[in-house]
Amino acid sequence: MTTTATTADQSAALEELLQHLGSQAVLSGDDVLVRNHNDYSGMMPTRPLAVVRPADTHGVATAMRICYSHGIAMVPQGGMTGLCGGARAGTDQIALSLERLVGIEEVDATSATMTVAAGTPLETVQMAAAEAGFFFPLDLGARGSCAIGGNLSTNAGGNRVIRYGMAREMVLGLEAVLPEGTVITSLNKMIKNNAGFDLKHLFIGSEGTLGVITRVVLRMFPKPGSTMTAICAADDFDTVLRLLSSARRELGPLLSAFEVMWPDYWTFATTQAPGVRNPFGADAPAHAAYVLVEALGTDPALDAPRFEAWLERLLEAGVMPNAVVAQSLADERAFWDVRDACGELHTLWPRHMAFDIGLPVAAMDTYVLRCKEELARRVPGCQSVFYGHIGDGNLHIVAFQPGVDEQPKDEVEDTVYGLVRDFGGTVSAEHGIGTLKRRWLGHARSEEQIELMRTLKRALDPKNLLNPGKVI
Amino acid sequence: MTTTATTADQSAALEELLQHLGSQAVLSGDDVLVRNHNDYSGMMPTRPLAVVRPADTHGVATAMRICYSHGIAMVPQGGMTGLCGGARAGTDQIALSLERLVGIEEVDATSATMTVAAGTPLETVQMAAAEAGFFFPLDLGARGSCAIGGNLSTNAGGNRVIRYGMAREMVLGLEAVLPEGTVITSLNKMIKNNAGFDLKHLFIGSEGTLGVITRVVLRMFPKPGSTMTAICAADDFDTVLRLLSSARRELGPLLSAFEVMWPDYWTFATTQAPGVRNPFGADAPAHAAYVLVEALGTDPALDAPRFEAWLERLLEAGVMPNAVVAQSLADERAFWDVRDACGELHTLWPRHMAFDIGLPVAAMDTYVLRCKEELARRVPGCQSVFYGHIGDGNLHIVAFQPGVDEQPKDEVEDTVYGLVRDFGGTVSAEHGIGTLKRRWLGHARSEEQIELMRTLKRALDPKNLLNPGKVI
Repeated sequence: MTTTATTADQSAALEELLQHLGSQAVLSGDDVLVRNHNDYSGMMPTRPLAVVRPADTHGVATAMRICYSHGIAMVPQGGMTGLCGGARAGTDQIALSLERLVGIEEVDATSATMTVAAGTPLETVQMAAAEAGFFFPLDLGARGSCAIGGNLSTNAGGNRVIRYGMAREMVLGLEAVLPEGTVITSLNKMIKNNAGFDLKHLFIGSEGTLGVITRVVLRMFPKPGSTMTAICAADDFDTVLRLLSSARRELGPLLSAFEVMWPDYWTFATTQAPGVRNPFGADAPAHAAYVLVEALGTDPALDAPRFEAWLERLLEAGVMPNAVVAQSLADERAFWDVRDACGELHTLWPRHMAFDIGLPVAAMDTYVLRCKEELARRVPGCQSVFYGHIGDGNLHIVAFQPGVDEQPKDEVEDTVYGLVRDFGGTVSAEHGIGTLKRRWLGHARSEEQIELMRTLKRALDPKNLLNPGKVI
Repeated sequence: MTTTATTADQSAALEELLQHLGSQAVLSGDDVLVRNHNDYSGMMPTRPLAVVRPADTHGVATAMRICYSHGIAMVPQGGMTGLCGGARAGTDQIALSLERLVGIEEVDATSATMTVAAGTPLETVQMAAAEAGFFFPLDLGARGSCAIGGNLSTNAGGNRVIRYGMAREMVLGLEAVLPEGTVITSLNKMIKNNAGFDLKHLFIGSEGTLGVITRVVLRMFPKPGSTMTAICAADDFDTVLRLLSSARRELGPLLSAFEVMWPDYWTFATTQAPGVRNPFGADAPAHAAYVLVEALGTDPALDAPRFEAWLERLLEAGVMPNAVVAQSLADERAFWDVRDACGELHTLWPRHMAFDIGLPVAAMDTYVLRCKEELARRVPGCQSVFYGHIGDGNLHIVAFQPGVDEQPKDEVEDTVYGLVRDFGGTVSAEHGIGTLKRRWLGHARSEEQIELMRTLKRALDPKNLLNPGKVI
């Protein structure tokens, strides 16, 4: 069910919003900033009917109550760094921006928790934890602009999921506002709380379709005392799997990243990305795969020799042909530069198509081979690179057809997601579904699962006014 | 809304169940075994109308469809080891036992996952992981009889939550049957899967009120290569908190247990529990608190000296007055025997009252003092002991009034849970709500939260037939 509000409804709602929240909190017409027109999805920008920017939870609840009663659709907006169009508001919708709902409310060192307003940028959260002598491990490229509320709404991943889990795992308590304006406050600080259903999981990862997250209690972790980083070469994918298994066993819970790069990606990164060098040397022989391994320990004097001894044992046993361990912060940075060079792919391939899929680890290499083959067959001249957080079953793909005016989006998506379905994978490992991936949801979820999602949506938002048309 | 089925409905349902599932799967009247009359809650046993024991998911779905269509209430039953009456079925209800839905379906070493039928005992799951060279860390006293499906329905905790999280954190995929019989199969093996709402969290921890878990995909972890165990003494609770903070920082992710025992508990365990010795020696002076610290590492030759050096530094710095490190498996066992002596409290205090609450860590000692005081004031002669998983904010309390025919349950619950509310804690850290704690749910959750739980229940079970009257 969707509701279309009349112009009279819209005017009445705007007037009531202005009256209750003040002119600083309600921008409409030309006052709507360009930042509220679009996220990072590359979709066509749209100017929402208005942007409402409450400064506290009460304001969010008031705004939602008003919009709901007038039948106006609302779209929650955070840092606008999402990649799937989940925060894009239509011209007849009101953008509910959390940009003024910012700040660290409390840092509780004894409970190792912090309570944070949802609009706070991730980097601010990281810095507040560091100042208190702790570590907040969620990290992604957009850290300076993405909001923690958006990170939780999309259940963000990032590089250290293998050690610390997804964003979901870092949340102890949460406050959210239901579509019609009811505030659900559960700022729990305890690791264990089995008093009834754990409601926070309704709001984490549902991309603002079931409620708007306003405040959160986050776990803080001890600051790691040592970092060990290596790049390993492998001559086949079995070697990658043996290395992963060995890393899990020998590094135990210190293992914090296991990033695999396939040869096409590696060649791009080490020969075409500006300022990136090949850690094995410019003339080193090519390999079937490259792995960045990182471990976070507590004591450099003890952890570093142990990490190096582990890799030496693997090299001596002939498990892998080559490995190089970072000897300095500069080395560490240089190794990560190879992995982060994906951010430069747009210069080589403007308007490329990027994917974030998940696969059972054992199926991954076969998938890569098949996908590359099918892309080459279906899309003449198609270029593609593969890399990702393999320890978590998360693969990123970037594909590009040179020399055409418009990229063959449908053909490439059909190939990538068709194989995902065949291999029992997921069409979104960490970026969410938003608008862009909605048509592919059925490749990763059964009709029964999607119908249950709809049941939840109808139960919480019977008028379908909160972020309608997203996810399901 | 509750529905009362007539005798005719009951007969029709039983006949249809027999017809579709066979006589081996449907027991009624005197054929109902005593094990299906009660869980470990100590409530009055009741004989359900019938016990239905399907052998596969299809059978569970068929049984639920039949019961739902005839308006018969169903109560899922696993190992019957729950402590809150969540699995107790009334005389007009059908017990849906998962006792025949057992077995390890698959062990996938590459993905480090196992797929398991919900009725499988926890110990069988642990052993299957061990056989494959892995470790399944969920562990509790009832491991031999409790079922993994019940562990997930109640989001079980146990001793190693500080390292591995609750049962919820060990689940990647799940299959559940909705009240009216729809099967939701999502046997996901990937750590990252953000394709729409993460539906498994609806069924984990909702105590069989929203669906019946039939199969699960569990994470397996690397087998720890070394175990370090110590008992530390503290002269005040601040010392306990400093020790916890130091353990988190210096042991990092190796820290696997941090169990605190208050003096009354310690005295009982080391002087009255059979076969338990005081690790500090029989004549050792008394302290304000005792802590069992455990760390799981990868290499005994390297980890053990490091663990001992950490404790020596704390002793030399005068942070704590005494500590003793286990030098053998026998020592380890002996240290845990002190902690596990709580299982012997029933011999000292038959029909004692036991509690499982959660509190913000910083509030814990004040809570213990206040609770002991109030119990003594309100319940003449009241004895009480306090111990728990303090690293997780989880406190266990056992209270007993000697020399009375009936324990003053209402008075003691009112004291314990009243203070929980005052201190912002939870009335259930790990045991769930079931029937017994339902009246106290409002001490830990707001009316808005409970109403949202009811909304979910109505959406999934509009006829209120699946485990009605439990939790909410």
